[in-house]
Amino acid sequence: MDAPHPLDRFFAPDAIAIIGASPERTRIRGQLLHLLRQNGYAGRLYPVNPRYAEIDGLTCYPSPAAIAAPVDLALIAIPAQAVLAALEDCAAQGVTYAAIISSGFAEQGGAQTRLQDEIAALAKRTGLRISGPNAEGFYSAKARVAATFSPAVEPRPGEEPLVASERRIGVIAQSGGMGFALYNRGRAQGLSFSHVVSTGNEADLTASDFFDYMARDAETAVIMLFIEGVRDPEKFILAAETAARQGKPVVITKIGRTKAGERAAASHTASMTGWNTAYDAVFRKYGLTAAADPDEAVAIAAGFVTCPLPRGNRVAVVTTSGGAGAWAADALASRGLSLPELSPAMQQSIRGFIPAYGSARNPVDITAQAVRTGGLIRAIEVLSGADEVDAIVVVLSLASEARISIDTAALQRIVARQSKPIQFYSYTLPSPLGRKVLAGAGLTLHTGLVPLASDLRALAERGRFAPPASPRPYAPAAAVSAALRAARGGLSEHAARQILAQAGLPMPPQRLVSGRERLDAAAESLGYPLALKIQSPDIAHKTEIGGVRLGLATPAGLRQAYDEVVAAAQRHRPEARLEGVLLQPMALPGVEMIVGTIRDPGFGPLVMVGAGGAMTELFRDVSYRLAPVDADEAMTMLGELRAAPLLNGFRGAAPADLAALARLVAQLSQFAAAYRDLVQEIELNPVFVHPSGQGCTVADALLIPLQR
Amino acid sequence: MDAPHPLDRFFAPDAIAIIGASPERTRIRGQLLHLLRQNGYAGRLYPVNPRYAEIDGLTCYPSPAAIAAPVDLALIAIPAQAVLAALEDCAAQGVTYAAIISSGFAEQGGAQTRLQDEIAALAKRTGLRISGPNAEGFYSAKARVAATFSPAVEPRPGEEPLVASERRIGVIAQSGGMGFALYNRGRAQGLSFSHVVSTGNEADLTASDFFDYMARDAETAVIMLFIEGVRDPEKFILAAETAARQGKPVVITKIGRTKAGERAAASHTASMTGWNTAYDAVFRKYGLTAAADPDEAVAIAAGFVTCPLPRGNRVAVVTTSGGAGAWAADALASRGLSLPELSPAMQQSIRGFIPAYGSARNPVDITAQAVRTGGLIRAIEVLSGADEVDAIVVVLSLASEARISIDTAALQRIVARQSKPIQFYSYTLPSPLGRKVLAGAGLTLHTGLVPLASDLRALAERGRFAPPASPRPYAPAAAVSAALRAARGGLSEHAARQILAQAGLPMPPQRLVSGRERLDAAAESLGYPLALKIQSPDIAHKTEIGGVRLGLATPAGLRQAYDEVVAAAQRHRPEARLEGVLLQPMALPGVEMIVGTIRDPGFGPLVMVGAGGAMTELFRDVSYRLAPVDADEAMTMLGELRAAPLLNGFRGAAPADLAALARLVAQLSQFAAAYRDLVQEIELNPVFVHPSGQGCTVADALLIPLQR
Repeated sequence: MDAPHPLDRFFAPDAIAIIGASPERTRIRGQLLHLLRQNGYAGRLYPVNPRYAEIDGLTCYPSPAAIAAPVDLALIAIPAQAVLAALEDCAAQGVTYAAIISSGFAEQGGAQTRLQDEIAALAKRTGLRISGPNAEGFYSAKARVAATFSPAVEPRPGEEPLVASERRIGVIAQSGGMGFALYNRGRAQGLSFSHVVSTGNEADLTASDFFDYMARDAETAVIMLFIEGVRDPEKFILAAETAARQGKPVVITKIGRTKAGERAAASHTASMTGWNTAYDAVFRKYGLTAAADPDEAVAIAAGFVTCPLPRGNRVAVVTTSGGAGAWAADALASRGLSLPELSPAMQQSIRGFIPAYGSARNPVDITAQAVRTGGLIRAIEVLSGADEVDAIVVVLSLASEARISIDTAALQRIVARQSKPIQFYSYTLPSPLGRKVLAGAGLTLHTGLVPLASDLRALAERGRFAPPASPRPYAPAAAVSAALRAARGGLSEHAARQILAQAGLPMPPQRLVSGRERLDAAAESLGYPLALKIQSPDIAHKTEIGGVRLGLATPAGLRQAYDEVVAAAQRHRPEARLEGVLLQPMALPGVEMIVGTIRDPGFGPLVMVGAGGAMTELFRDVSYRLAPVDADEAMTMLGELRAAPLLNGFRGAAPADLAALARLVAQLSQFAAAYRDLVQEIELNPVFVHPSGQGCTVADALLIPLQR
Repeated sequence: MDAPHPLDRFFAPDAIAIIGASPERTRIRGQLLHLLRQNGYAGRLYPVNPRYAEIDGLTCYPSPAAIAAPVDLALIAIPAQAVLAALEDCAAQGVTYAAIISSGFAEQGGAQTRLQDEIAALAKRTGLRISGPNAEGFYSAKARVAATFSPAVEPRPGEEPLVASERRIGVIAQSGGMGFALYNRGRAQGLSFSHVVSTGNEADLTASDFFDYMARDAETAVIMLFIEGVRDPEKFILAAETAARQGKPVVITKIGRTKAGERAAASHTASMTGWNTAYDAVFRKYGLTAAADPDEAVAIAAGFVTCPLPRGNRVAVVTTSGGAGAWAADALASRGLSLPELSPAMQQSIRGFIPAYGSARNPVDITAQAVRTGGLIRAIEVLSGADEVDAIVVVLSLASEARISIDTAALQRIVARQSKPIQFYSYTLPSPLGRKVLAGAGLTLHTGLVPLASDLRALAERGRFAPPASPRPYAPAAAVSAALRAARGGLSEHAARQILAQAGLPMPPQRLVSGRERLDAAAESLGYPLALKIQSPDIAHKTEIGGVRLGLATPAGLRQAYDEVVAAAQRHRPEARLEGVLLQPMALPGVEMIVGTIRDPGFGPLVMVGAGGAMTELFRDVSYRLAPVDADEAMTMLGELRAAPLLNGFRGAAPADLAALARLVAQLSQFAAAYRDLVQEIELNPVFVHPSGQGCTVADALLIPLQR
């Protein structure tokens, strides 16, 4: 897409003012001008500093106002207290963008936070778009803008850059250190970059703004994001949608996963849900690939720029060392990739050009000897054309320059017309020549088995990914909205079920009984055996106070249960408003599941499904998605559960009604989306999923209205 | 320990014959002599090759017999067909050891396997100890023996070796490529090695022999093992015991995990148990640290040689980049390490020497500025002396040589007197100077967060490890042995329970009833409600054929159940020998667990415990140990289960009788060990663990005798 974007000139300014420029190169402010020039920026540069008349041969201006020419970007590196005045000056001069390097704002708290708020207000008032403060600046390759003090952009004279791919990666990082570290690590592997931007405190421009830019930017083939927290979830989701629509892969790291504050919600679902659950639900929905460490992030990005997407997860390993090949096979299989034994025809073909002590099964051990006689290239070639594998991993040693004997030109020809990923891994530390030979063929080189396996898994997942056909949220019904609004003080199960049923969710028959004498009639109309539960908008967790009796088979048992649960409620919660008891037929047998929604303050409602009972809690075996989802996406969620076999006819049981469960998940997610401003949380637990064709029964329901 | 070892001279020979020596350095046989001399071997070298009178100035001999002097080691690199004769010749000359580099033996199958068998027989007959064939040889640092063609031992003139630690690592690998790759990777990080040995096809000397050697070798501080399969499990276990007793850490990789053939056993336990389960059970017992990839293996070994063991798992992260520090914190916490917020006093102390925009909580963000003013060293120093953390991780960037400002001498002083691990991680790719500065202080440098976290976890686990006080297997009782021997055709549950009860295991009351008319009397003596199960030595899985009825509460129900299960058995297994039905009182409520044993053909009986029901199978939430274990080790096994909270009072339930369960696990393991030659497998499933003090009930039992 080449439509104009509001940030186009940020990354390609015709003129840059460096406010606070200095000739002292050991200081940050001195490095900015120096690095811009060293990297060959071709536009106009205006140093601004009242202390100098000229710096390094360039006229130096006392203030932005003194520059009698248009300025696209002001790079600001002056003490925090002077920043606001400089920005006012820039805005008055019609400067388009400012990037504030200076620290001393919200990261220090107190008055400095207020100073940052004033910067944000200035941006809004004047239209000056501001990046930072407290940022490390940015780098843009095409326009050669090194607007940063990061040592990662220091040119290294005499060092020939390694270029494995010219498909460019864009990096957006809320930590300047990490953004430029990803650039540093990627360059060493022969990757190319479009832009690297450090977003700092995000007083005005946020990571989501830059994400949107790079999602649309024709220069950027793959995006890397390093996120501590998203300030504008809706904008972030729109950018993620754009990237998904463009088919542009995104490798994302969200940190702060283990320290994230736990939400203070009383119910079970919420107690397992931190902020990061919402991020992961968004990442899954839009196909963003999460990376656990910098090596993995760079390895995955390298895979995306150098490889086509595989059609499946079947990998052939080609190796010169049996031990290393087997280790790679283990690492790949343990990440969910499949290593099928090759077909007899394929094995026969391979045995034609490897020694007798090699192996053609998979891993294919061509032996070191066959490399010298062209066997490596032939093995890659024959596997490239075969339908029986979706990706090729070559495991070898590229440590000794004297022993490298890869025909780069031949490899390059195969890579150029490849339709499946070809990845190389050196089990020894590679020599520079080893990397160079592969870069000449358009390939990077892995040195870690774990990142290699993560990369192939990411490629396979991406190959399967299709942007979700999210159902549009339906318009809220006035009656349901009114009932939810009226219920802000709490809802009994009975009332919650009425609302959900009204919105079209399948609910089993029930009777609210408010007097002991009415039990028999209600029981007769429902039929034994019955469940009996205390009903009060003030009692969310009925079991905990002894307010539930199950499997009641006789009128006498029913009456006794009634007396007991009422007494228990009065004893444990004397202040609770009692509505009576709820009678329900006992659910037929089925697989016990939990279905629920929770509302993230930023991203909105998420829907969850998991195996019921202790499994949800002990094994965190739960799948989340940003709501709403359709039944197809709900089915994908079910497939992600480790407990999925329970639903597919476990130990000889009848397969469960997956379609009915997926429908329930979708319906509940659509309800949560439609009433997002009124519902905090819903928990259907347990839901019994009956054999195929027999639907599912919501055995208990909790709906917590949103407190405003 | 400095006691003499039969392999001492293998690694430190006074004289080496190179059989097949050649002046052609491009060939393997030519490299051997060359690399031995290049690495400064100081002993006598005897090239043997009838085609030459001298090689590189050394007299060349036509045969081993022609060397009129003692030879400790013959290094053999001649065609496979000539190897046996050369070995005979060596044995006749009194050569002590041979290392066969030549390929073309069992790895090719057929006649070549028989050739290898002859080599093994020769070793046994003559006492010549033989390593290989099909090996990459070995390297020994102290005696400077580079008896290999691996490029990893090629001296690199002009390259100053990096030495972070002189505590040496010994490497034993069944793949020569991987053994020397670990050496190559470790050296690049500044690690030192004692010996690297490639064991090849192991016709005579095995990995276990070398493991035993290195476990006793005073030169070797840490052992790395790369294993495809252990040929002599008992010897391996003895070596592991020795290493554990010596307090010598072992980093081990066992490959072939995902292709391992599945055992063809009918029962449930066996279906989840591959060979690798036995390896893992052995590794856990003796505290061997398993490594998932070469980076992780080297990182963990580096931690063991450079760090003292921590007393706990509390880590402080000290960083110069907030983003990188938080990422490291996430990576560490996700591997089970704890990152406590520092105490107010500690925070106050740290705030004294860092800027206001830093943080003293944990991660401690000292900021890049504080590094320049000595803040890094002070932070490490103050945390070194604090009781509130057990390890320190420093996260910084060592990419730019110009910006490195670490006081090596000061750091070295802290490291020298450290009592807790100090580890450095560079989030950018480090410059050589960065590594050198740290090596000067006795430290290596991590570049991967995942390996770093694995390393710290390994250190913490090792810190907790105590060699197990394995109970000595008790002497089998003649009556039990006889019963097991008599039952080789199969055992009904009733018979299995009798045997287990006879051996002292707690079994609930039971009655075998062989006629419908005897049901009432048996039921009366046991008391309702009852379980009724068909009994036959030919029916292992009673539920599957409809042979079990539970919760029978009346005589009429009992009779009906009797008729049904007998009919079901006759229908499904018309040939089965029916003994009658087993009556048992229904078990009181409790947490459902599974306890069992399985016999690995190599390592012998393993004991397992897991949460019952679907959890064992879906989540593989099972702990295994080499049998026998005592109750303490059984308690450790219980603590490893993710389902452990179920036993500790889950959701308000009473805590379960852990002690009784641990006792049952220990007793069963001791039974399996005592009768290891008679028992294939035992499965107690389910076992109901009642509230604390009330014991546990074995509700079903299966014992499969060993078929010979």
